[in-house]
Amino acid sequence: MQIQDRTDPHHVAVIGAGFAGLQAVKTLDGSGARITLIDRKNHHLFQPLLYQVATTILSPSEIAWPIRRLMRNRPEVRTVMATVKGIDGGKVLVEGGEPIPYDTLVIATGSVPAYFGHDDWPAVAPGLKTLEDATQIRRRILLAFEQAEVEPDPARRRALMTFAVIGGGPTGVELVGVIAELAHRTLRKEFRRIDPDETQVILIEAGPRVLGAFPECLSAYAQAALTRMGVDLRLGQPVTALTQGGVQIGQELIPSATVVWAAGVAASPAAKWLGVAADRGGRIAVEPDLSVVGRPELFVIGDLAAVPWAEGTLVPQLAPAAKQQGAYVGRVIKARLAGQAPPPPFRYRHAGNLATIGRRSAVVHYGKVKLTGALAWWIWGFAHILFLIGTRNRVVVAWSWLWTYLRGQNAARLIVDPPDGKD
Amino acid sequence: MQIQDRTDPHHVAVIGAGFAGLQAVKTLDGSGARITLIDRKNHHLFQPLLYQVATTILSPSEIAWPIRRLMRNRPEVRTVMATVKGIDGGKVLVEGGEPIPYDTLVIATGSVPAYFGHDDWPAVAPGLKTLEDATQIRRRILLAFEQAEVEPDPARRRALMTFAVIGGGPTGVELVGVIAELAHRTLRKEFRRIDPDETQVILIEAGPRVLGAFPECLSAYAQAALTRMGVDLRLGQPVTALTQGGVQIGQELIPSATVVWAAGVAASPAAKWLGVAADRGGRIAVEPDLSVVGRPELFVIGDLAAVPWAEGTLVPQLAPAAKQQGAYVGRVIKARLAGQAPPPPFRYRHAGNLATIGRRSAVVHYGKVKLTGALAWWIWGFAHILFLIGTRNRVVVAWSWLWTYLRGQNAARLIVDPPDGKD
Repeated sequence: MQIQDRTDPHHVAVIGAGFAGLQAVKTLDGSGARITLIDRKNHHLFQPLLYQVATTILSPSEIAWPIRRLMRNRPEVRTVMATVKGIDGGKVLVEGGEPIPYDTLVIATGSVPAYFGHDDWPAVAPGLKTLEDATQIRRRILLAFEQAEVEPDPARRRALMTFAVIGGGPTGVELVGVIAELAHRTLRKEFRRIDPDETQVILIEAGPRVLGAFPECLSAYAQAALTRMGVDLRLGQPVTALTQGGVQIGQELIPSATVVWAAGVAASPAAKWLGVAADRGGRIAVEPDLSVVGRPELFVIGDLAAVPWAEGTLVPQLAPAAKQQGAYVGRVIKARLAGQAPPPPFRYRHAGNLATIGRRSAVVHYGKVKLTGALAWWIWGFAHILFLIGTRNRVVVAWSWLWTYLRGQNAARLIVDPPDGKD
Repeated sequence: MQIQDRTDPHHVAVIGAGFAGLQAVKTLDGSGARITLIDRKNHHLFQPLLYQVATTILSPSEIAWPIRRLMRNRPEVRTVMATVKGIDGGKVLVEGGEPIPYDTLVIATGSVPAYFGHDDWPAVAPGLKTLEDATQIRRRILLAFEQAEVEPDPARRRALMTFAVIGGGPTGVELVGVIAELAHRTLRKEFRRIDPDETQVILIEAGPRVLGAFPECLSAYAQAALTRMGVDLRLGQPVTALTQGGVQIGQELIPSATVVWAAGVAASPAAKWLGVAADRGGRIAVEPDLSVVGRPELFVIGDLAAVPWAEGTLVPQLAPAAKQQGAYVGRVIKARLAGQAPPPPFRYRHAGNLATIGRRSAVVHYGKVKLTGALAWWIWGFAHILFLIGTRNRVVVAWSWLWTYLRGQNAARLIVDPPDGKD
C-alpha cells in the first residue's frame, strides 16, 4: 500500500467524527491534503436513532460504525482514537499521545446534554448523546420493571413504574412514545405481580407545547396522539428539583425511579480550547465561511457553530445542518489548496423537521408540507434507512423495525451490567 | 388473564435460566405445578456463540433473550431477576427481596471461570461466561489496536499487538481463530502507523495438544490449521504467572496487553448453599435421578452436577448435556406430581463435539464420524442456527455470518466504555 509522504502535503486535522466532521473528510477526498481524524470513540454514531437503542428496539451495533472502517480506502486519512484536551501553538493536544500539528483545523465536537448549572442532575437523569448513555437508560428502564415485580412496598412500586422524560422536543416525544408502547404492549403478559399496563409515562415540558420547533397544528396532533397512548403531558411546567426520590414540578413531587433528560444541549467546551467567546449555549460565532473570526485556518462546524439563519435565529443543531456545514468547509479548504476562488458564503438549506410518535405515527414538516400519522411514519422510516451508512445496517435496522412492528417485540431488551455494578 | 391460586399447587423453584434450568421449566409445562424461575440476569444466553460477541462478529442481543419473554405464555411461571445468596429452611434467599419458599428446588447455576486459586489472575485475563465478559474482551482487543496506533515505544507497541489466549479447548481455539482473522483480514488497510498483519496471536495450552476431548487426528488438523493462520501454539506449557506485563510460561515472559482465560471452569458455589460436599471442580454428586443424596426434593443439573458417565468420567459440561438433564428432571417431577412411576435413571446421550477454526473451517466428532474443513464448518453453522431460539435471531445471526463471510467485515466492532472508564 502506497502511503503519502507524511511531511510535505498540507495537513488538515478534524476533531470529531460525527455528521459534520465525517462529511468534511468525505468532501476533502482528492484534495491532496493529508488528514488526521480524531475522535474520543472508535465509532461514528447515527444519533437520530439513539433513542431506539435506549428503548430496546435497536442494538448499539446497528447504528454505529467503526470510523477506521469508513476510512479504509482513504490512505491519506489517519484515524486517531483519543480525547482532545486542548489546542496550543498549532497543535492538537491529546490525552496519552503526542501533540498533533496541523495546517488547517476543523472542530466538529458537537454538543452534550445541558443541565443549566445543576451539577447533581446528570446522575439522576442521564441525557442521550452516546451509546453508553443509551445502554444506561435501557438498563434503568428494564431494571425498574424487574425491581417493581419483587418490590413489596406499593409506594415504592409505583415510583419504579413511573417514567419521566424531561423535555418535549423530538427526542422527548420519541422516548415517551416508545416507553409507553413498551409498557402497554411489549411487556404485556410477562409479569405476574405487577401489571405493566399501570405504568405511568410522563412528559414534562417547560414551554406551552411539545415539538416547539414545529407548527402548532403538528404539536397539537402529537399531544393528542401521546395522550391517547396514555402519556401524561405536563406542559408549561419547568422542573424545579431532581433527586433520587423523583421530579419536582413547582410544589408537586412526582416519585419516579427512572428519569431521562431531553431538555436541551450545550456545545462541547471547544471554545475554551480556542480562548474565544461562546454564546450561552457554548456555540462559537463564525465568519460566513465558517472559519473563526480572525483565524482563517480554523473552522468550527456542526452543533458547535453559531451560524446565523433566518430572522435572528441560528442554524438548528440537526444532523442535516451538520452535514451541510461539513461539506461546505471541505469545499472551502479544497478551493484554497487548489488556489481557486472560495465558494460563496455558507447557506443552510432546511431539510424539514421530523419526529415519530411511537410505532405507527409521526409528524413531518417540510416547507408548506405538514404530514401526520402513518404516512409520516413511513416517510420518517425511509428517510432514516436511507441515511444509515452501509447496506448491512440498512438491512438489519429495517428487519428490526419490521419485527417490532409485526410482533410488537423489541429485539434488544438486554440488561447488561456495568463492570462495577453501578450506573 | 387468569392467574392460578398461588397457595395450593406444588411449587417448583428453579435457580438459573441457562440451558438446564430453561429446559426443566419447558418440560414442566402442563405439570400443574406453580414455577418460579430465578436468575441473576434478565436474559438467557446462548453461550456457545459468546466467543463471537467477544470477537466482534455478533452483537449481544443476537444471542440473548429476555427470560420473561420466553415465559410469556406460561402464566404459572413467575420470573424473578435476583441474585441468590443461599438456601435455608425450604426457602431460596435472594438479595434485596423476600425469601422464596419451594416444595421442589432445581439448582442449575452453571459454572464460572476457574483460576486454580490465583486470585489476581481474573483482572488480567478475563474469562468468557457472560455478555459483560464478552463486551469487556471485545473492548480490550479493539482498544489494544487503537493504542498501538498511537504508541511511540516499539516494545510497548509490540505488547499491545500481542494477544494471548490461555486454554486450548474449543473456546480457546475458536477465540484465537477469530482474533487471527480480525488482525490479518478484517483490520487490513485500516491503520496507518501499525500493520495489523504483524499481530501475534498465541494459544497457550498446558496439555500436549489442543482440543484434548477430540480424537488426536482432529487435534492435529486444528493445530495445522491454526499454524497456517499465523497462530503461535505453545503446547505443554503451563502458565506460571500472569501480570499486567504479560504471560509467564516457565522462564519466558511474553509481553501481552490482552490476555483471555479459557483454561477451565468450576461449578458455581451452590454446594455451599446446600452444605454438601463438592468435587475439586465444585460439582455436586447426584443420585441416578439427579437428586441430591438424601434430599429427594432437591435436584442439581447442568455444569453443577457430577453425573457419572463412561469409564469413570463425568458427563461433560456442554449445552446438550445440560438440556438433557433439564428435560429429565422435568419428567421426574412431572411423574411424581402425577403419582406415576419415576422414569428410568438419567442416561447421557453424547451429541458429539464441535469446534470452529476461524471463518471457514471446523472439526466435528460424532461417534465414528470425524469431519474437518468447510463441510464441518457448515454442519457447525447449521447446528448452531438451529439451536438458537426464535426466528428473529436465526435470521440476524445467519445474516451477520453471511456478511462476515462474504465481506470479511465484522458487524460489531464497537468499543463501548464502562461508565467508570475502567474495566
